[in-house]
Amino acid sequence: MRQSKLFSKVLREEPKDEKSINAKLLVRAGFVDKLMAGVYSFLPLGNFVLKKIENIIREEMLKVDAFEVFLPTLHPKENWQKTGRWEKMDDLYKLKVEDKEFALGPTHEEVISPLVKKFLSSYKDMPLNLFQFQNKFRNEKRAKSGLLRGREFLMKDLYSFNSSEEELENYYEKIKQAYKNIFQRCGIWEKTYLTLASGGSFSKFSHEYQTLTQAGEDIIYICKKCNLAINKEIIDIEEGKCFQCKNSNLKEEKAVEVGNIFKLNEKYSKPFDLSFTDKNGKKKFVLMGCYGIGLSRLMGTIVEVHHDNKGIIWPKEVSPFKFHLIEIGKSGKVKEIANEIYQFDEENILYDDREDKSAGEKFAEADLIGISLRIIVSDKTAEKESVEIKERGEEFSKVIKKDEIKKIIK
Amino acid sequence: MRQSKLFSKVLREEPKDEKSINAKLLVRAGFVDKLMAGVYSFLPLGNFVLKKIENIIREEMLKVDAFEVFLPTLHPKENWQKTGRWEKMDDLYKLKVEDKEFALGPTHEEVISPLVKKFLSSYKDMPLNLFQFQNKFRNEKRAKSGLLRGREFLMKDLYSFNSSEEELENYYEKIKQAYKNIFQRCGIWEKTYLTLASGGSFSKFSHEYQTLTQAGEDIIYICKKCNLAINKEIIDIEEGKCFQCKNSNLKEEKAVEVGNIFKLNEKYSKPFDLSFTDKNGKKKFVLMGCYGIGLSRLMGTIVEVHHDNKGIIWPKEVSPFKFHLIEIGKSGKVKEIANEIYQFDEENILYDDREDKSAGEKFAEADLIGISLRIIVSDKTAEKESVEIKERGEEFSKVIKKDEIKKIIK
Repeated sequence: MRQSKLFSKVLREEPKDEKSINAKLLVRAGFVDKLMAGVYSFLPLGNFVLKKIENIIREEMLKVDAFEVFLPTLHPKENWQKTGRWEKMDDLYKLKVEDKEFALGPTHEEVISPLVKKFLSSYKDMPLNLFQFQNKFRNEKRAKSGLLRGREFLMKDLYSFNSSEEELENYYEKIKQAYKNIFQRCGIWEKTYLTLASGGSFSKFSHEYQTLTQAGEDIIYICKKCNLAINKEIIDIEEGKCFQCKNSNLKEEKAVEVGNIFKLNEKYSKPFDLSFTDKNGKKKFVLMGCYGIGLSRLMGTIVEVHHDNKGIIWPKEVSPFKFHLIEIGKSGKVKEIANEIYQFDEENILYDDREDKSAGEKFAEADLIGISLRIIVSDKTAEKESVEIKERGEEFSKVIKKDEIKKIIK
Repeated sequence: MRQSKLFSKVLREEPKDEKSINAKLLVRAGFVDKLMAGVYSFLPLGNFVLKKIENIIREEMLKVDAFEVFLPTLHPKENWQKTGRWEKMDDLYKLKVEDKEFALGPTHEEVISPLVKKFLSSYKDMPLNLFQFQNKFRNEKRAKSGLLRGREFLMKDLYSFNSSEEELENYYEKIKQAYKNIFQRCGIWEKTYLTLASGGSFSKFSHEYQTLTQAGEDIIYICKKCNLAINKEIIDIEEGKCFQCKNSNLKEEKAVEVGNIFKLNEKYSKPFDLSFTDKNGKKKFVLMGCYGIGLSRLMGTIVEVHHDNKGIIWPKEVSPFKFHLIEIGKSGKVKEIANEIYQFDEENILYDDREDKSAGEKFAEADLIGISLRIIVSDKTAEKESVEIKERGEEFSKVIKKDEIKKIIK
């Protein structure tokens, strides 16, 4: 894509109404725009990143035998009354239209449980795993952390339906591997801890994926001995000791929850009478699990973890483009080489072809945008049929022959 | 995909609460499920079709230099007050949360106009074209036509920003070609008429794409002489004559609007002060155009146009799978050949590997689901290393050698 055609422009100054690093950088570099507190528009650059994250997650979901669905945002009040969450859930958006009431879906157990009931009757119909990408809505009181806490946010939610505890447990472990792959590919696994959290009233614990960052609103304790992390909300129960090794040398850290996995067991299958006939002809309730990742929050977290004082440093797999091709100078030779490289893989290259920007401005904007690999074509190297390449995080570039670039690109 | 793993099951009977053909067939065959009037869940089969339609539209949008964005569903009341539509639009969903009010976006002029204002200042910033795929919301009083009229529905909306009437006109014509491509690839172009419709108060006419079907809620008049179509809502103005050739031999037809294109001109740029400096340094308002296609409505329309008394007949490019591989009989040879073919292109084949279904049941379900090309492996042909192939719409199959199938698949 030619940068001269890019709709968004890098802003000269940080947005004044943003406090979080992720929002400051993403707004300033033209990835997102704030419509109101907790509600953001994704501009073309931001949409590229979102699609890359979506594709990574979809690939990993298909590997664990999950099928994609697309469920509605408007939910009937009755479904939410059935589980008691119409009254209990503080941050549920409720819509009243004439005499009818609806919830705007913050999660989809109330829709998917009665849906699955229509098709599932026997243990042979399980395991069954359904996922979707869908905008969710929560009436957040404090929406001030940019993409980390939205009133409207994109989520992948996955639900598993199982006929036995063992089957559910097996899938739960499979998802742990899938989530590790996802966070690894998104470049945040090294700072992400599988964290014990409250299991609600239906199982002892759930697991959260907590990524260490000062921007996080959660407090976790990491056991220095066995590396287990525990959410502060449950630590008191066991008197400040590690749940696993009973060590009491725990380190307090701020973190943001980028994903969670939860054994729901019969919590939602009971109110919706989602049951099946087991091998012995006995009626039982389906055991459910749910597994979420907030895509927009994940995007914000990546920025919190990967940036420096010049801007964002996108990990390779989620970089909006693979290469940022920067043309310095207006000589025919520079244009010629830049064009040749651009035509080689237009889809994966952001080509800074702008003629009204100085080299300094171009580099500063490229640092802010943070594409992982940079290719510089300038008079200095063009004459020798060479270009410079540089990773966004690195200080120095290296000069290589133009023809070698083609190998790197493909 | 193995059909034994397919979550949805074909229902024995037509759903009793559906009146439209599209909903009857799509619900019964397991593509969608009705959550409430005008609100449907897309099951895996339905999601496959939706993604194919989405990809066709995205490809055609990229060809006309449009960039993808993703805008929010929650809109601030103030934006809708600015254009007067907070009061004027009957079917706007309004959400009241404590002292704040929001609209659930039925269209996005009120969001994209102030967004573009932040980045656009000169005639050099245009032409600019932005599109998105996004769920829209409308409080439809009569939501009884299945996917043709939803309270929540998936749309592609595209907005163009132009510096002159000529530039807008050029893009408008370009979009006509893109829309023709889209409806052609979706298999409904032959029944679709570019139709003159009301232009609101800001341009004389807009254009609708109206597809002939008894399920349609619009009435159009087609000129038998010049083939122009005119929406009933504007025909009275010109005394029942064709606007183009003044012929009065017009044929009345029922039709459904699958897309529309509209010159908004200054309608939304004025209230949001979306202006630019022209070549002579003069301030002018941006001229806008908007171009919509409802994806879920398009899916329903395809079914209205392409079905017979046995079920759906998907056009090739939007078929949920390219091939329906049906295994008849349990001999080792049948399994062997079916497996060999399946492994050749698992992603594009729905493989009916179910052992508890008779040949008759399998064929009846395949007819209902309507995948465009069928491959049948049975004892009869397996011994001769052959299979039968048949298009969904055709009556007879033809026998071909197993190895030829591979050529067809790739």
